[in-house]
Amino acid sequence: MHLGCHWIAEVSPMVSVTLTDKDRVQQFLAALPQQLGLTAVHPPAIQQGEDGAVRGVVLLSESHASAHTDPRRGLVFVDLFSCAPFSQDEARRILLDTWPGELVVDRFLERGAS
Amino acid sequence: MHLGCHWIAEVSPMVSVTLTDKDRVQQFLAALPQQLGLTAVHPPAIQQGEDGAVRGVVLLSESHASAHTDPRRGLVFVDLFSCAPFSQDEARRILLDTWPGELVVDRFLERGAS
Repeated sequence: MHLGCHWIAEVSPMVSVTLTDKDRVQQFLAALPQQLGLTAVHPPAIQQGEDGAVRGVVLLSESHASAHTDPRRGLVFVDLFSCAPFSQDEARRILLDTWPGELVVDRFLERGAS
Repeated sequence: MHLGCHWIAEVSPMVSVTLTDKDRVQQFLAALPQQLGLTAVHPPAIQQGEDGAVRGVVLLSESHASAHTDPRRGLVFVDLFSCAPFSQDEARRILLDTWPGELVVDRFLERGAS
Protein backbone atom coordinates (compact mmCIF):
# COMPACT_ATOMS: atom_id res chain seq x y z
CA MET A 1 0.00 0.00 0.00
CA HIS A 2 1.36 3.41 -0.89
CA LEU A 3 -0.62 6.51 0.03
CA GLY A 4 1.67 9.44 -0.49
CA CYS A 5 4.89 10.64 -2.03
CA HIS A 6 7.32 12.70 -0.01
CA TRP A 7 10.15 14.36 -1.91
CA ILE A 8 13.05 15.58 0.24
CA ALA A 9 15.67 17.71 -1.50
CA GLU A 10 18.60 19.90 -0.59
CA VAL A 11 20.43 22.25 -2.94
CA SER A 12 23.73 24.03 -2.52
CA PRO A 13 23.21 27.10 -4.78
CA MET A 14 26.00 28.54 -6.89
CA VAL A 15 25.03 32.12 -6.00
CA SER A 16 24.81 32.62 -2.25
CA VAL A 17 22.77 35.83 -2.42
CA THR A 18 19.83 33.74 -3.63
CA LEU A 19 19.67 32.25 -0.11
CA THR A 20 18.48 35.51 1.45
CA ASP A 21 15.99 36.33 -1.32
CA LYS A 22 12.55 36.14 0.30
CA ASP A 23 10.75 36.66 -3.03
CA ARG A 24 12.53 33.64 -4.47
CA VAL A 25 11.13 31.37 -1.76
CA GLN A 26 7.66 32.86 -2.31
CA GLN A 27 7.88 32.32 -6.06
CA PHE A 28 9.18 28.78 -5.68
CA LEU A 29 6.37 27.75 -3.33
CA ALA A 30 3.78 29.32 -5.66
CA ALA A 31 5.27 27.74 -8.80
CA LEU A 32 5.89 24.26 -7.43
CA PRO A 33 2.24 23.15 -6.90
CA GLN A 34 1.00 25.11 -9.90
CA GLN A 35 3.45 23.52 -12.32
CA LEU A 36 2.99 20.04 -10.87
CA GLY A 37 -0.81 20.14 -11.09
CA LEU A 38 -1.30 20.29 -7.32
CA THR A 39 -3.65 22.67 -5.50
CA ALA A 40 -2.47 25.40 -3.15
CA VAL A 41 -5.10 26.23 -0.51
CA HIS A 42 -3.67 29.70 0.16
CA PRO A 43 -0.63 31.78 -0.84
CA PRO A 44 2.62 30.58 0.76
CA ALA A 45 3.40 31.75 4.31
CA ILE A 46 6.93 33.16 4.41
CA GLN A 47 9.17 34.48 7.17
CA GLN A 48 12.69 35.86 7.05
CA GLY A 49 14.94 35.75 10.10
CA GLU A 50 17.43 38.38 11.21
CA ASP A 51 20.25 36.26 9.78
CA GLY A 52 18.59 36.41 6.34
CA ALA A 53 17.36 32.80 6.42
CA VAL A 54 13.96 32.38 4.80
CA ARG A 55 11.44 29.69 5.62
CA GLY A 56 8.15 29.16 3.89
CA VAL A 57 5.33 26.69 3.66
CA VAL A 58 2.21 26.23 1.58
CA LEU A 59 -0.78 24.07 2.45
CA LEU A 60 -1.96 21.94 -0.48
CA SER A 61 -5.21 20.05 -0.91
CA GLU A 62 -2.83 17.11 -1.35
CA SER A 63 -0.74 17.95 1.78
CA HIS A 64 2.05 20.56 1.85
CA ALA A 65 5.30 21.92 0.46
CA SER A 66 8.05 23.81 2.27
CA ALA A 67 11.34 25.54 1.58
CA HIS A 68 13.91 26.72 4.08
CA THR A 69 17.18 28.49 3.31
CA ASP A 70 20.29 28.42 5.48
CA PRO A 71 22.63 31.18 4.24
CA ARG A 72 25.28 30.34 6.84
CA ARG A 73 25.72 26.81 5.55
CA GLY A 74 24.72 27.61 1.96
CA LEU A 75 21.79 25.19 1.68
CA VAL A 76 18.14 25.17 0.68
CA PHE A 77 15.93 22.47 2.20
CA VAL A 78 12.77 21.47 0.33
CA ASP A 79 9.93 19.09 1.17
CA LEU A 80 6.95 18.20 -0.97
CA PHE A 81 4.47 15.76 0.48
CA SER A 82 1.46 14.84 -1.66
CA CYS A 83 -1.18 12.14 -1.61
CA ALA A 84 -1.51 12.68 -5.39
CA PRO A 85 1.29 11.57 -7.72
CA PHE A 86 3.61 14.22 -9.19
CA SER A 87 6.62 14.28 -11.49
CA GLN A 88 9.81 14.16 -9.48
CA ASP A 89 11.76 15.19 -12.60
CA GLU A 90 9.61 18.27 -12.99
CA ALA A 91 9.89 19.10 -9.27
CA ARG A 92 13.69 18.84 -9.52
CA ARG A 93 13.70 21.09 -12.60
CA ILE A 94 11.63 23.79 -10.83
CA LEU A 95 13.95 23.65 -7.82
CA LEU A 96 17.14 23.97 -9.88
CA ASP A 97 15.62 26.73 -12.04
CA THR A 98 14.97 28.65 -8.81
CA TRP A 99 18.31 27.90 -7.14
CA PRO A 100 20.84 26.81 -9.78
CA GLY A 101 23.42 24.69 -8.03
CA GLU A 102 24.21 21.21 -6.83
CA LEU A 103 21.40 18.91 -5.73
CA VAL A 104 23.06 17.33 -2.70
CA VAL A 105 20.00 15.45 -1.40
CA ASP A 106 17.23 14.04 -3.60
CA ARG A 107 15.18 11.40 -1.79
CA PHE A 108 11.74 10.11 -2.51
CA LEU A 109 9.97 8.49 0.45
CA GLU A 110 6.80 6.50 0.22
CA ARG A 111 4.41 7.47 3.00
CA GLY A 112 1.72 5.15 4.30
CA ALA A 113 3.61 2.20 2.87
CA SER A 114 3.02 -1.02 4.78
CA MET B 1 27.56 18.21 9.95
CA HIS B 2 23.96 18.12 11.04
CA LEU B 3 21.73 21.16 10.54
CA GLY B 4 18.20 20.03 11.20
CA CYS B 5 16.02 17.31 12.64
CA HIS B 6 13.10 15.96 10.65
CA TRP B 7 10.65 13.74 12.52
CA ILE B 8 8.35 11.66 10.32
CA ALA B 9 5.53 9.83 12.08
CA GLU B 10 2.37 7.96 11.18
CA VAL B 11 -0.34 6.88 13.61
CA SER B 12 -3.21 4.48 13.17
CA PRO B 13 -5.72 5.85 15.72
CA MET B 14 -7.95 3.56 17.77
CA VAL B 15 -10.98 5.82 17.27
CA SER B 16 -11.60 6.54 13.61
CA VAL B 17 -13.84 9.56 14.19
CA THR B 18 -10.75 11.45 15.38
CA LEU B 19 -9.53 11.39 11.76
CA THR B 20 -12.24 13.80 10.59
CA ASP B 21 -11.93 16.15 13.57
CA LYS B 22 -10.63 19.42 12.17
CA ASP B 23 -10.25 20.98 15.63
CA ARG B 24 -7.99 18.12 16.68
CA VAL B 25 -5.54 18.89 13.86
CA GLN B 26 -5.64 22.57 14.76
CA GLN B 27 -4.99 21.84 18.45
CA PHE B 28 -2.18 19.42 17.64
CA LEU B 29 -0.36 21.89 15.41
CA ALA B 30 -0.75 24.63 18.02
CA ALA B 31 0.38 22.39 20.92
CA LEU B 32 3.32 20.73 19.19
CA PRO B 33 5.62 23.77 18.80
CA GLN B 34 4.43 25.35 22.03
CA GLN B 35 5.18 22.28 24.14
CA LEU B 36 8.50 21.61 22.40
CA GLY B 37 9.79 25.16 22.87
CA LEU B 38 9.59 26.01 19.17
CA THR B 39 8.12 29.22 17.73
CA ALA B 40 4.99 29.29 15.56
CA VAL B 41 5.02 32.26 13.18
CA HIS B 42 1.22 32.24 12.73
CA PRO B 43 -1.74 30.04 13.74
CA PRO B 44 -1.89 26.74 11.83
CA ALA B 45 -3.49 26.76 8.36
CA ILE B 46 -6.07 23.98 8.17
CA GLN B 47 -8.28 22.61 5.40
CA GLN B 48 -10.84 19.81 5.42
CA GLY B 49 -11.72 17.95 2.22
CA GLU B 50 -15.14 16.66 1.21
CA ASP B 51 -14.09 13.16 2.27
CA GLY B 52 -13.42 14.46 5.80
CA ALA B 53 -9.62 14.33 5.47
CA VAL B 54 -7.92 17.20 7.26
CA ARG B 55 -4.56 18.65 6.36
CA GLY B 56 -2.76 21.38 8.23
CA VAL B 57 0.55 23.12 8.42
CA VAL B 58 2.25 25.66 10.63
CA LEU B 59 5.28 27.76 9.78
CA LEU B 60 7.87 27.84 12.56
CA SER B 61 10.82 30.14 13.02
CA GLU B 62 12.73 26.85 13.06
CA SER B 63 11.01 25.49 9.88
CA HIS B 64 7.56 23.82 9.87
CA ALA B 65 5.21 21.15 11.16
CA SER B 66 2.36 19.43 9.36
CA ALA B 67 -0.40 16.92 10.01
CA HIS B 68 -2.58 15.17 7.45
CA THR B 69 -5.35 12.68 8.19
CA ASP B 70 -6.54 9.97 5.82
CA PRO B 71 -9.87 8.65 7.16
CA ARG B 72 -10.21 6.12 4.33
CA ARG B 73 -7.00 4.35 5.27
CA GLY B 74 -7.15 5.22 8.97
CA LEU B 75 -3.85 7.08 9.21
CA VAL B 76 -2.45 10.38 10.44
CA PHE B 77 0.78 11.62 8.82
CA VAL B 78 2.96 14.03 10.78
CA ASP B 79 6.14 15.91 9.92
CA LEU B 80 8.17 18.17 12.14
CA PHE B 81 11.26 19.75 10.65
CA SER B 82 13.32 22.02 12.87
CA CYS B 83 16.79 23.52 12.75
CA ALA B 84 16.64 23.68 16.57
CA PRO B 85 16.80 20.47 18.61
CA PHE B 86 13.58 19.14 20.15
CA SER B 87 12.59 16.14 22.27
CA GLN B 88 11.43 13.31 20.06
CA ASP B 89 9.96 11.58 23.14
CA GLU B 90 7.90 14.64 23.93
CA ALA B 91 6.78 15.00 20.29
CA ARG B 92 5.68 11.35 20.28
CA ARG B 93 3.76 11.86 23.54
CA ILE B 94 1.89 14.91 22.16
CA LEU B 95 1.01 12.96 19.01
CA LEU B 96 -0.33 9.92 20.88
CA ASP B 97 -2.21 12.12 23.37
CA THR B 98 -3.96 13.69 20.38
CA TRP B 99 -4.56 10.46 18.43
CA PRO B 100 -4.29 7.49 20.81
CA GLY B 101 -3.37 4.48 18.72
CA GLU B 102 -0.49 2.64 17.14
CA LEU B 103 2.59 4.54 16.03
CA VAL B 104 3.29 2.72 12.77
CA VAL B 105 6.06 5.00 11.50
CA ASP B 106 8.51 6.89 13.73
CA ARG B 107 11.58 8.03 11.84
CA PHE B 108 14.08 10.70 12.64
CA LEU B 109 16.03 12.05 9.67
CA GLU B 110 19.05 14.27 9.92
CA ARG B 111 18.83 17.08 7.40
CA GLY B 112 21.86 18.86 6.05
CA ALA B 113 24.01 15.91 7.07
CA SER B 114 27.10 15.48 4.95
